[in-house]
Amino acid sequence: MRFIATDSRDTDTLGELEILRRLRRRNKGTSSASLRLGIGDDCALLRIRPGEELAVTTDLSVAGRHFQLGWHPPEAVGHRTLARGLSDLAAMGARPIAAFLSLGLPRELTTPNRRIGSRSVTESWIERFLDGFQALAKAYKTPLAGGDLAESPLPTADVVLIGAVPRNRALLRSGAHPGDALYVTGSLGGSAVGLAILAKLADHPTNATSLPPPVSKKMAAQLVPHLYPQPRVSQGLWLMRRRIASAAIDLSDGLSSDLTHICNESGVAAEVNADSLPIHSYATEAQALHGGEDYELLFTALPAARVPRSIAGVPVTAIGRIVRPRRGRPQVALTSAHGVRPLVARGWEHFS
Amino acid sequence: MRFIATDSRDTDTLGELEILRRLRRRNKGTSSASLRLGIGDDCALLRIRPGEELAVTTDLSVAGRHFQLGWHPPEAVGHRTLARGLSDLAAMGARPIAAFLSLGLPRELTTPNRRIGSRSVTESWIERFLDGFQALAKAYKTPLAGGDLAESPLPTADVVLIGAVPRNRALLRSGAHPGDALYVTGSLGGSAVGLAILAKLADHPTNATSLPPPVSKKMAAQLVPHLYPQPRVSQGLWLMRRRIASAAIDLSDGLSSDLTHICNESGVAAEVNADSLPIHSYATEAQALHGGEDYELLFTALPAARVPRSIAGVPVTAIGRIVRPRRGRPQVALTSAHGVRPLVARGWEHFS
Repeated sequence: MRFIATDSRDTDTLGELEILRRLRRRNKGTSSASLRLGIGDDCALLRIRPGEELAVTTDLSVAGRHFQLGWHPPEAVGHRTLARGLSDLAAMGARPIAAFLSLGLPRELTTPNRRIGSRSVTESWIERFLDGFQALAKAYKTPLAGGDLAESPLPTADVVLIGAVPRNRALLRSGAHPGDALYVTGSLGGSAVGLAILAKLADHPTNATSLPPPVSKKMAAQLVPHLYPQPRVSQGLWLMRRRIASAAIDLSDGLSSDLTHICNESGVAAEVNADSLPIHSYATEAQALHGGEDYELLFTALPAARVPRSIAGVPVTAIGRIVRPRRGRPQVALTSAHGVRPLVARGWEHFS
Repeated sequence: MRFIATDSRDTDTLGELEILRRLRRRNKGTSSASLRLGIGDDCALLRIRPGEELAVTTDLSVAGRHFQLGWHPPEAVGHRTLARGLSDLAAMGARPIAAFLSLGLPRELTTPNRRIGSRSVTESWIERFLDGFQALAKAYKTPLAGGDLAESPLPTADVVLIGAVPRNRALLRSGAHPGDALYVTGSLGGSAVGLAILAKLADHPTNATSLPPPVSKKMAAQLVPHLYPQPRVSQGLWLMRRRIASAAIDLSDGLSSDLTHICNESGVAAEVNADSLPIHSYATEAQALHGGEDYELLFTALPAARVPRSIAGVPVTAIGRIVRPRRGRPQVALTSAHGVRPLVARGWEHFS
């Protein structure tokens, strides 16, 4: 762990030490009883409660693949970076304890007070990134306990989330059984809608700067699910505590891919009822099925389980069921009034 | 956490799923009682023993800054990536429980069976990287419990190490007191020697391929401390258990910088005796003082403490003492038969 350094000798860019100082200052008010020692030593020291085990997840975000400097406001990149990790904890039913952040950034993204075209920018990219990251961290009482910082020509952020969950109570991908009902929180496809709008805006010839263009209020509302997704931490904790879910995963790759993960890990098949899907108001069925990055929870439960219509303020919808896998039948099938068709995973795989 | 994916459709490169399969295969034999659930779910699940707390560290390595594709064999990059994290655990006196690895790699580094110039390469870069990473992981019984994988034009590796240490027993940077003696394990400057040799080889006109050139046996021996540094995990555990060290840090930035970190965090000053430094046989005094990446432990102990001449087979040398900070006197002073001079931290800071 670095995040500690000798003093900065360059007044134009924020030195590593100055970035560290600001991090420590911002972090105030986001402490946690579990964090014994944060930024400043070789390691952070954390405590969990007796009877708990640890849940650990890492998520790498690379400019040009997971975010676009020209499309995504820095606050949204920070928010989304942390949301990815928190969503993994939510899918296990774990409570967040601490986050760690490794940032590789080009020098200019740590430089405040510069001009881009006719606009004057007073805060550096990294500060606005941290604004978004730490606002979400505060909302979920997750202190930034450490990390690393390096100069890199390609903006890269790797986030590590540490959570705690009572022993043998974590929600796994592997627990689904034939007969279980299939549920999803919130609505699907909203993130894909936002991404499509951003892509269209970026094509516009007047927006050829490295900052995202201004957008109308209505457009802005449609961007929110993509730019500022809410990880379902409270919903995951609720499911874990009530022992209701037999399996769970968060929807990061898209329903078709993530449901396939559950089927693979549980050795089962699934049927999704197309007419019951909670499709986001502006989204198409395809965006709801394959869009990804909605960060809702997909979970299974015994048919007799009493699953409420909403958990901690977020709607829950029954969308299908788990079935026995059979030769000649698709692993995941989409049923509707028009018949049955296979739902093939269209999530993207790196290096293929 | 990803490291799980749909199937690969490209036979030229290793798909994410195929890389995952190989990771799981390689990981066999490196399990740990602490690891309950590894690669394959949203999070890994880990356990610690009652009375222990967690030590967590992350270290980001970026091509062109922390390693050079043209200088460093992939096995060495993998070894060094893990060694950085293990060394942070060693400096806290923590026992390693699990490692997590986020890799951002260009497509060609996941491609086996290619030709570079006149040479034929059968293993992909990523496989050779993992060979080095997992050989060290095995030696320190540290399973790779998860991570993330993404295509990225710039090779980037972020490593997370999770360790455990009895509560309130971790070795901190902040515990040094005036009067304490100052010790270092092993020898200093060996890594800087190796790096200088690699830089010289890279300048050679016949070596303009993306693979490191062949080196003589003697040269190879001089490269070892740089390419394959040994983290002092056993030595850190020994110091923690015997309650001998009042403060500790690992030498990643170099003695002058890392001793300054101890002084800053402990609010003390220090004197180093130049004549007592365990300088590596081929190194200069400057390389020993400022070189960095030796990954030895620097620690302080009460003057009355019985510090042995070696710990777990590695020599220990007394190199100076901690003193009260005084106005007009350098924070870290280098004393020798020729007098006293200030030892200024020359470790590099990112973005300055």
